[in-house]
Amino acid sequence: MESAAQAPDQQVQQEQTFDVIVIGGGAVGENAAGRAVQGGLSVVLVEAELVGGECSYWACMPSKALLRSTQALRAARSVDGAAQAVTGELDVAAVLARRDSFTSGWKDAGQARWLEDAGIALVRGHGRINGPKEVTVTAADGSTTTLTARHAVTIATGSAAAIPEVEGLHESHPWTSREGTSVQIVPRSLAIIGGGVVAAELATAYAAFGAEVTLLARSGLLGGMEPFAGELVAEALQAQGVSLRLNTSPQRVSRSAEGVRIETEEGDPLLVEEVLAATGRAPRTADLGLESIGLEPGTWIDTDDTLRVLGFDWLYAVGDVTHRALLTHQGKYQARAAGDVIAARAQGRRIDDSPWGAHVATADHAAVPQVTFTDPEVASVGLIASAAREAGHRIRVVDYALGDVAGSALHADGYTGQARMVVDEDRRVVLGMTFVGPDVAELLHAATIAVSAEVPLDRLWHAVPAYPTINEIWLRLLETYGRPGEQTLNGLS
Amino acid sequence: MESAAQAPDQQVQQEQTFDVIVIGGGAVGENAAGRAVQGGLSVVLVEAELVGGECSYWACMPSKALLRSTQALRAARSVDGAAQAVTGELDVAAVLARRDSFTSGWKDAGQARWLEDAGIALVRGHGRINGPKEVTVTAADGSTTTLTARHAVTIATGSAAAIPEVEGLHESHPWTSREGTSVQIVPRSLAIIGGGVVAAELATAYAAFGAEVTLLARSGLLGGMEPFAGELVAEALQAQGVSLRLNTSPQRVSRSAEGVRIETEEGDPLLVEEVLAATGRAPRTADLGLESIGLEPGTWIDTDDTLRVLGFDWLYAVGDVTHRALLTHQGKYQARAAGDVIAARAQGRRIDDSPWGAHVATADHAAVPQVTFTDPEVASVGLIASAAREAGHRIRVVDYALGDVAGSALHADGYTGQARMVVDEDRRVVLGMTFVGPDVAELLHAATIAVSAEVPLDRLWHAVPAYPTINEIWLRLLETYGRPGEQTLNGLS
Repeated sequence: MESAAQAPDQQVQQEQTFDVIVIGGGAVGENAAGRAVQGGLSVVLVEAELVGGECSYWACMPSKALLRSTQALRAARSVDGAAQAVTGELDVAAVLARRDSFTSGWKDAGQARWLEDAGIALVRGHGRINGPKEVTVTAADGSTTTLTARHAVTIATGSAAAIPEVEGLHESHPWTSREGTSVQIVPRSLAIIGGGVVAAELATAYAAFGAEVTLLARSGLLGGMEPFAGELVAEALQAQGVSLRLNTSPQRVSRSAEGVRIETEEGDPLLVEEVLAATGRAPRTADLGLESIGLEPGTWIDTDDTLRVLGFDWLYAVGDVTHRALLTHQGKYQARAAGDVIAARAQGRRIDDSPWGAHVATADHAAVPQVTFTDPEVASVGLIASAAREAGHRIRVVDYALGDVAGSALHADGYTGQARMVVDEDRRVVLGMTFVGPDVAELLHAATIAVSAEVPLDRLWHAVPAYPTINEIWLRLLETYGRPGEQTLNGLS
Repeated sequence: MESAAQAPDQQVQQEQTFDVIVIGGGAVGENAAGRAVQGGLSVVLVEAELVGGECSYWACMPSKALLRSTQALRAARSVDGAAQAVTGELDVAAVLARRDSFTSGWKDAGQARWLEDAGIALVRGHGRINGPKEVTVTAADGSTTTLTARHAVTIATGSAAAIPEVEGLHESHPWTSREGTSVQIVPRSLAIIGGGVVAAELATAYAAFGAEVTLLARSGLLGGMEPFAGELVAEALQAQGVSLRLNTSPQRVSRSAEGVRIETEEGDPLLVEEVLAATGRAPRTADLGLESIGLEPGTWIDTDDTLRVLGFDWLYAVGDVTHRALLTHQGKYQARAAGDVIAARAQGRRIDDSPWGAHVATADHAAVPQVTFTDPEVASVGLIASAAREAGHRIRVVDYALGDVAGSALHADGYTGQARMVVDEDRRVVLGMTFVGPDVAELLHAATIAVSAEVPLDRLWHAVPAYPTINEIWLRLLETYGRPGEQTLNGLS
């Protein structure tokens, strides 16, 4: 077998045929490649920019690095006895330098070394599908390499910021999440267009850095999450000095020597140093050669639960391009299933594609976790109440104030937060959980296990939360729901 | 029914017969009483000291209050950008004042009000069993009240610090956890005898308060936990300035005007301002009248899994006195089962006493969670590797450095920690998990759910940890264990 494992650099030139071609070397592509190699296949990865992708350089990692120092400082300030020791201010230059270390200064040597160690060949350049199982890679110098796959081609090109159609916006060179996370000089003022996770996180970060931040959102914040999430984050952002303009849209944008001028439906025009568009994502599929195989360029790619593209037996897609769940960890999850199933199919092994099997991404439908690293944080998994009702579930919603748990009160003075459990009344399992409050990110995985494993409520009573931790919220939610034998006392709501 | 709900204060005198008598009004007794009342029974609670008990005034709550400010400050100091703002020192007086607020100044008016609201009668005084279903309470003024139970008496008197047999120790008036957690003036120097959770937590607290702390332990630290837990905590305590004398025992203790002198098996004698004994717990059963019903005073009380005392149909015990698991949350868990089963038996309802049923404390055997709030924290649930082997399980131990997870690196610069998953190879479920590292307390509940619900490993792959959180350790542990189809590549260890 012409394995790429021994000397990938040389073999890229010599050997154009691999078992698997993965287009896109972000975390998701790397995982798909890694699993396929672990399954015994030879794999080549095609990457046009930096190996490691969006998450490593312009999303998860730098954004969390920009937020963590502020979060730690807020935590210390919120506990009497510690607060007195925090007499200085956030060192913004140090935060940016720390962020630089997490992005390795936007160099991918470390990631490329990981590929080499993992036995994955790397071809740098822009990959385009020519036809079945064939990909042509155009390098920066214009030279091309044509790759052939014996078994599968996997698209993992991700997504890019979608710039909304607003007059003058494109010409005003707006920032996107890329500029927002890779900033070297914090602007004095920043307008953020959007109300989603990226908008809320970057508003939190830049407000802490001392920028005058205005957030313009078409509706409220964090749409798609439980309503109290956006409400609590909106309150907090305002307390952090962010000017919120909700339920409004920019009408006209122009850039001059003075800065960027933004006219909105209501209120005075804004004049800011920079404007950042965080209004969603578009699939990176416009220039992938999809037309050569009968797919429409620029659209999201539909797959089955084994991540195989509908209508193909050799084409797979994982991560953002599938529009299943635009989150790095969920893309990696898909990539593990895809890498494994590609290897299993190539080797004629048994395919485990029943729900929750090893070769399917079932959790994409039922148990997608997400943390928004605002202050308060929002951590959620599974269905929110309204979505569960729309899906036809007979549910009961259980709410509890997170600050009323002893562990929360110990954690921070005046701790404020909210937890919600959405219970499927027919199956008596948890369909969804949402936590909003300071430092709730690590609470989420318990909920993710409960939802994805469909643990019966009766069994969750035996999962005792350690006292006094914030996780005692689980006991409070179960008590609020009520236990068999005393349900008639509590009544159904 | 002569319910005590309407006016408990008056009825205590008028009505001496209740469905249930609970002796001991700590958190555990309160929960047993509360569940029985919710099940429709009348309940009287007997408390000799403060309603709320050890946990509220001299254990969990004050100890965590003493530790939290230091933890928050350490967290801020360990993140560049935030660290620069921490230019002052811990305000010890503020920490003590914060602790006072959590113990309500050692007043139980709030807890007594909770009882009243819950419809639970309260008799203050020392309760002694006279014979079947009869308890005599001796108040502080010497007056007595005799209570009769129609259905059950529940013992929830807890445990007290056991002072070890060391020459002169008792006469030297050593501190116990009570004095350690209720301190008003921090001693200049403190010797702690013991190597368990209380010793390690109080050493952490007092070192942060500026006391010169020496810890004397018969063996290592945190026996009964995975060995790396005690090792990492020992290293950290030394780095925090604690002088550790492990594998040694005090031989002679004496107190003089100069302070407390402690002679040990090895090394120079110690001279300290105070000595604290944290060498385990003794059951509070010595003066309970157990002899009147044929039980031996001063011993732990054996129960079945419905918390009924062996050999009795009317006597129950919950919490520390049972020696099932000396932890408040686990006692509360037992109390919920006991309160429910007492009500169910009284009313002739169906008893659900199969394993993991509503009326049994099955988790006591398999899924007891515990957090040690040292720095690093230790969070563990279920069986450690050695105990699993001793119990005859065919196991595989999966270790992963917690600091190698992206979420940990973001959380704190130089994050160091360790995670261990103990897998039952026959059933392919997790028997135990241990996390050691800064701020791991809230990671535990995910493991508690996985262990108590016996979630198959194959399903845990679908519980995707949100990126980048410390919980990604779950993915790393699963990857290290290996997945079906590539197990032969990883090999068994």
